[in-house]
Amino acid sequence: MSKHGIKKVVLAYSGGLDTSIILKWLQTEYGAEVVTFTADLGQGEEIEPARAKALAAGVKPENIFIEDVREEFVRDYVFPMFRANTVYEGQYLLGTSIARPLIAKKQIDIARQTGADAVSHGATGKGNDQVRFELGYYALEPDIHVIAPWREWDFKSREALLDFAEKHQIQITKDKRGEAPFSVDANLLHSSSEGKVLEDPAVEAPEFVHMRTISPEAAPDEPTIITMDFEGGDPVAIDGVRMSPATLLTRLNQLGHDNGIGRLDLVENRFVGMKSRGVYETPGGTILLAAHRGMESITLDRGSMHLKDELMPRYASLIYNGFWFAPEREMLQAAIDLSQKHVTGQVRVKLYKGNVSVIGRTSPWSLYDQDLVTFEEGRVAYDHRDAAGFIKLNALRLRVQARRDRRTGG
Amino acid sequence: MSKHGIKKVVLAYSGGLDTSIILKWLQTEYGAEVVTFTADLGQGEEIEPARAKALAAGVKPENIFIEDVREEFVRDYVFPMFRANTVYEGQYLLGTSIARPLIAKKQIDIARQTGADAVSHGATGKGNDQVRFELGYYALEPDIHVIAPWREWDFKSREALLDFAEKHQIQITKDKRGEAPFSVDANLLHSSSEGKVLEDPAVEAPEFVHMRTISPEAAPDEPTIITMDFEGGDPVAIDGVRMSPATLLTRLNQLGHDNGIGRLDLVENRFVGMKSRGVYETPGGTILLAAHRGMESITLDRGSMHLKDELMPRYASLIYNGFWFAPEREMLQAAIDLSQKHVTGQVRVKLYKGNVSVIGRTSPWSLYDQDLVTFEEGRVAYDHRDAAGFIKLNALRLRVQARRDRRTGG
Amino acid sequence: MSKHGIKKVVLAYSGGLDTSIILKWLQTEYGAEVVTFTADLGQGEEIEPARAKALAAGVKPENIFIEDVREEFVRDYVFPMFRANTVYEGQYLLGTSIARPLIAKKQIDIARQTGADAVSHGATGKGNDQVRFELGYYALEPDIHVIAPWREWDFKSREALLDFAEKHQIQITKDKRGEAPFSVDANLLHSSSEGKVLEDPAVEAPEFVHMRTISPEAAPDEPTIITMDFEGGDPVAIDGVRMSPATLLTRLNQLGHDNGIGRLDLVENRFVGMKSRGVYETPGGTILLAAHRGMESITLDRGSMHLKDELMPRYASLIYNGFWFAPEREMLQAAIDLSQKHVTGQVRVKLYKGNVSVIGRTSPWSLYDQDLVTFEEGRVAYDHRDAAGFIKLNALRLRVQARRDRRTGG
Amino acid sequence: MSKHGIKKVVLAYSGGLDTSIILKWLQTEYGAEVVTFTADLGQGEEIEPARAKALAAGVKPENIFIEDVREEFVRDYVFPMFRANTVYEGQYLLGTSIARPLIAKKQIDIARQTGADAVSHGATGKGNDQVRFELGYYALEPDIHVIAPWREWDFKSREALLDFAEKHQIQITKDKRGEAPFSVDANLLHSSSEGKVLEDPAVEAPEFVHMRTISPEAAPDEPTIITMDFEGGDPVAIDGVRMSPATLLTRLNQLGHDNGIGRLDLVENRFVGMKSRGVYETPGGTILLAAHRGMESITLDRGSMHLKDELMPRYASLIYNGFWFAPEREMLQAAIDLSQKHVTGQVRVKLYKGNVSVIGRTSPWSLYDQDLVTFEEGRVAYDHRDAAGFIKLNALRLRVQARRDRRTGG
Repeated sequence: MSKHGIKKVVLAYSGGLDTSIILKWLQTEYGAEVVTFTADLGQGEEIEPARAKALAAGVKPENIFIEDVREEFVRDYVFPMFRANTVYEGQYLLGTSIARPLIAKKQIDIARQTGADAVSHGATGKGNDQVRFELGYYALEPDIHVIAPWREWDFKSREALLDFAEKHQIQITKDKRGEAPFSVDANLLHSSSEGKVLEDPAVEAPEFVHMRTISPEAAPDEPTIITMDFEGGDPVAIDGVRMSPATLLTRLNQLGHDNGIGRLDLVENRFVGMKSRGVYETPGGTILLAAHRGMESITLDRGSMHLKDELMPRYASLIYNGFWFAPEREMLQAAIDLSQKHVTGQVRVKLYKGNVSVIGRTSPWSLYDQDLVTFEEGRVAYDHRDAAGFIKLNALRLRVQARRDRRTGG
Repeated sequence: MSKHGIKKVVLAYSGGLDTSIILKWLQTEYGAEVVTFTADLGQGEEIEPARAKALAAGVKPENIFIEDVREEFVRDYVFPMFRANTVYEGQYLLGTSIARPLIAKKQIDIARQTGADAVSHGATGKGNDQVRFELGYYALEPDIHVIAPWREWDFKSREALLDFAEKHQIQITKDKRGEAPFSVDANLLHSSSEGKVLEDPAVEAPEFVHMRTISPEAAPDEPTIITMDFEGGDPVAIDGVRMSPATLLTRLNQLGHDNGIGRLDLVENRFVGMKSRGVYETPGGTILLAAHRGMESITLDRGSMHLKDELMPRYASLIYNGFWFAPEREMLQAAIDLSQKHVTGQVRVKLYKGNVSVIGRTSPWSLYDQDLVTFEEGRVAYDHRDAAGFIKLNALRLRVQARRDRRTGG
Repeated sequence: MSKHGIKKVVLAYSGGLDTSIILKWLQTEYGAEVVTFTADLGQGEEIEPARAKALAAGVKPENIFIEDVREEFVRDYVFPMFRANTVYEGQYLLGTSIARPLIAKKQIDIARQTGADAVSHGATGKGNDQVRFELGYYALEPDIHVIAPWREWDFKSREALLDFAEKHQIQITKDKRGEAPFSVDANLLHSSSEGKVLEDPAVEAPEFVHMRTISPEAAPDEPTIITMDFEGGDPVAIDGVRMSPATLLTRLNQLGHDNGIGRLDLVENRFVGMKSRGVYETPGGTILLAAHRGMESITLDRGSMHLKDELMPRYASLIYNGFWFAPEREMLQAAIDLSQKHVTGQVRVKLYKGNVSVIGRTSPWSLYDQDLVTFEEGRVAYDHRDAAGFIKLNALRLRVQARRDRRTGG
Repeated sequence: MSKHGIKKVVLAYSGGLDTSIILKWLQTEYGAEVVTFTADLGQGEEIEPARAKALAAGVKPENIFIEDVREEFVRDYVFPMFRANTVYEGQYLLGTSIARPLIAKKQIDIARQTGADAVSHGATGKGNDQVRFELGYYALEPDIHVIAPWREWDFKSREALLDFAEKHQIQITKDKRGEAPFSVDANLLHSSSEGKVLEDPAVEAPEFVHMRTISPEAAPDEPTIITMDFEGGDPVAIDGVRMSPATLLTRLNQLGHDNGIGRLDLVENRFVGMKSRGVYETPGGTILLAAHRGMESITLDRGSMHLKDELMPRYASLIYNGFWFAPEREMLQAAIDLSQKHVTGQVRVKLYKGNVSVIGRTSPWSLYDQDLVTFEEGRVAYDHRDAAGFIKLNALRLRVQARRDRRTGG
């Protein structure tokens, strides 16, 4: 019987050093059978090598799950989030946050399939990701046992960790011996870098932390102009070519990369309570956000748009904090999705050395009415005198108050 | 006795063709004594020539008010608004909206001083500015009479207007004979262009509509790096040089101009109900927004920041819609201002071909705690095990619900 | 050809004096064919007599529409609104507001059916109802012509109106000769009284204005205890007897009436800008609100409940202001409705002399977990030590700020 | 040297059994010097006996702090909260929540004064109060050590606790031997009961749990009518007699008690994640809430009132969750307080068998304008035709959308 009575654990396994150590630790410390789940989220690394590593670590072949989830990720997580024009703290496009619920869901699916009674992840005890993983697990499988090695084990130093790795024949690439100069997370939406050389927010992020984009300075001197087609709030084509969600985002990433688009250096507030400094690259997402706003600008009613804008910060916090599967996130999503029915049409977007500019929008569902807005004369759609009454009644309460204040010396 | 019994009108007078026609129309149609108010808001035109024009139109010397209000504008309107990181519909920096309350206030001040019983402005009947002016008037002087010539007069065409102008010896510059290719508003915060060649939102705005910025393409190939000092939420120095509010914004505008920063082409929703397309240039404001967010990122608590982010869209709508002097705007301002007490320190900002990037932040009031966030070992400020309890209790309601749903097949 | 070119008008016609005058005025002033729509909304008056009056006024039989819309009213308007626990300005249950969109919709339906090009209503120019009717008309049929007689006609006094009535053989009941002591609106949800004897908010509303309830003082000395069953957020049974929506609300009204429940005397803020004083009676609705909250209290997750509570004031304002058919109301409804899936079960409610108290709640979908909350020992669902970590991380940002403030003398 | 190196602890000490056990446990387990703080918050028990008990337990005379904080409690905590018309989850008046920050603040003050390095409280590990105490401590003194005995000690049963008490000569009143049928908290604002006989939310709360009110059934058959004067949002007089805050609330409590007012039986959502059932009695607070809303109804502008209503649920959650000293609560308070400047005047309130009804309101700062709202003719303040324009422009976006939807089959 294993420690804590755990029999089988589904581990979110990248194949890298840290989760390889965790795998081994789960085996040795918990005496548990380990099931590995390795996902291609578009992080830009081969996932198939994880199989050999897992096998080498003693994982049974039937316990190795490797899956390309890129389409599901973009279709069911990234695009719904972008329907809300979501940014956290005014800037962050939530590239890491939005991937966690999908991984959690897959682990729970596999736990059910394999009869596992626990799940585990490699997120540390100071970050948001532990929260996102675990809230996802619990929301989907409330009685699952969660193992968070970074919060549990006794390794006192990185040295001790590496000793453990060596003792268990876990391969340590040379550059891992010395400490990495910063920590990285990546998926099809973004890559993030934090820690170490980035820890002082007074100091500019070095160029070498960037991996998804060339710098604006290095980008071409000529702008790139593309069209993007939207249907029901989601992008469906670039330059007239229809693409699947993941293909489209991959293409946007390339365009963003080439034009130095989507870099962000910020200090953010973690759910666990401290501020941290991160460098994010979201090349395709940055283009998508601008294009989606452009598409909405002619297809979305003012009432819908303003309601969306007011709800967005809370929606963003829910995702950032790991509450993707919470009912209030689903309520907000229902409201947002309803608004997107006619967010359909085409925008033209100019990409140039870090800039994304919407330069044209058309839609069969456009609410923009040139007859209504024009300065030209002779159109009848709008009676200027209506404005007088509109203003008078909007002013009424202000006037009553002003009279009161004057009367009372208020 | 004049029409409607109006005796004296304070007109917001630019000295341009339109308000010159209005001046004359007020004299002839209302038989009213006209008081002119001409303000230097940083629109980039001389205001002194308005005196001669007003005199020529028969305005008494003591009825001509010309004032440089740039410092008041930036200090009491622009900066308070930027404390909230205000953007309307996700993008617009409200450059036109924020100038209107100041003009309205000045007109009311002058009306009291001169014993005028009416005020008048040159805003058209389809726009937001009529609302902003008039809500301002009424909030400050509830029983003032408001004359909105564009909503009242009978001129059936621009031709008829110009005929009236000629008949009254109002000078028409040659380019005004033909219609201007678009309409312009400008002040120290921004310039806006709309109408005519800009009316089709599918068509890119031509380069020539821009007047405040060179294009990113035309900007230097080398970045410009500046520091900005903040005190209590407002910028006070650039590159270590303390400046008055208007001087500082003027300097930021120059920096923005030179680096192709602050162009925006968007379709927005007017308060009066239709969508319109505008091209805005807010070079200094765009830099200020980014720098202010950067300053807040290390000095503002998460609770304050998130509350501000949630309140902002409503605050922006209030300003956009003309409710600057409404009590609910003042309530929001009180909340926002309280948060800014320690938004003090320095940010380094990189300007490059349309991009504004915060690349460093320092503050004696920093809430960023490197000891807390570091991956390094041996620090005691944070106990990883606390995270376990934090997650467990945040998950509790999700687990209870998940159990319920499983139990009921929900 | 009639005035303004109007050919056929659908009038919201009660059969009372005011709308009878309007009917005749539309015929004489507009020269238009009038179509009457008379609805049984549960106002407590026979609607069939309206037929004879309309015929007598010269309306063609095929132009007389009389419909019992009580079930539709309660099912599609009242119940959805109560899912949100909607109260305007903390108190008003929106009994008048919620009926207007239904009437507007019916008028538009009839206009389409009869080929009418205009609609008309009897709401005055100072109230909210004109807005609610007309926003409904325009949202459903944007190019309909709207005739608002109270804003258009020239009658200078009530005397002039009555003279017009007499001249056109409109029957004036004796009590209408003198002015009514207050104005009334009623439907199945509520009745409202305002104006005249109620205009001074310092003076208590006289007992005789109440028509739906006996006073708490006159109610029985013994409480009445009922059960209410809910399914998906809506009530479906009282004391175990399933009823249709309108039947159920009728029964609740009787219970409320008998126990002196649902009186409200308040000063509210109208959309058109002034404050007004109203006396409302919502006997069944008051019971429903309390019972629904009671049902939600054990079936709704905290996140859903708090989100609903935060959205409610805006949702209430939208309904109060007449924006039932606006897309943002529909967005909010989508969010609210999603939350109601499991608001199913039974509440016991005690009614006593004006008081409504929920005294018991049960549900197969209950989220209340006695094992979790109990002070008893020996249960394992909750580890007290988790609370320590929960508090520590919630406190973290406050501590960091407190240290900063101490350090800086903040 | 004591355990954990704690030298001196300030304990929130009621003198009751539980905190007496804690006192002794702190002495024996931590080996710490204990400082006791006993506050008269209006809980209705003598506090002076706590002195003898503390002395008997070996607390030094100079370490015993006993203070009547009723005025401070009402003036600085209760009244500010009522300015916002605060209710949690639509119903709960936060009587327990609002007392905790004051106690926390006093403990920290005493800790500074006595040089104590720790604070301690008697709240259990499942409730909200532990959070409220500790967030208060940390926000005011970030490096204080917090001891939460209920989360720390090893007593396995109530029996074990009582054995410990007996062993240390702590007096156990007879009724404490058997378990109390429910748990109680009380202060000048309210009393709460929960647990044990109240744990099943399906079962009506027995009459005997109520301690602050007689039942509506037992209340007099004649209504009591009072006047309440407000100044700047706070009540200052009852029936014309000016009173200090605590005196006034005491008087309101008596009035509420006598008229069976302020009972509430509800299931609420705790911050720590589970639902709990409580029975609250807030006699004076219930009257105050109604009266304050009545006062606001004629003195507060619509914009202010609606903003307050929208902010309130979040404000309530902050207090409920223990974030009284968080900067975002202070931001909201600043906004709320600004709105209260003119909430001054008098309301008449009728109390009758559980009902509180505002039956009259007057104010020198009234915004209610009878001339504006009246149906009477001949007044000029309001032009009915303004309403036409007001509606037209409010409808404009709905019409544009309706046309779009018709055009596209939307």
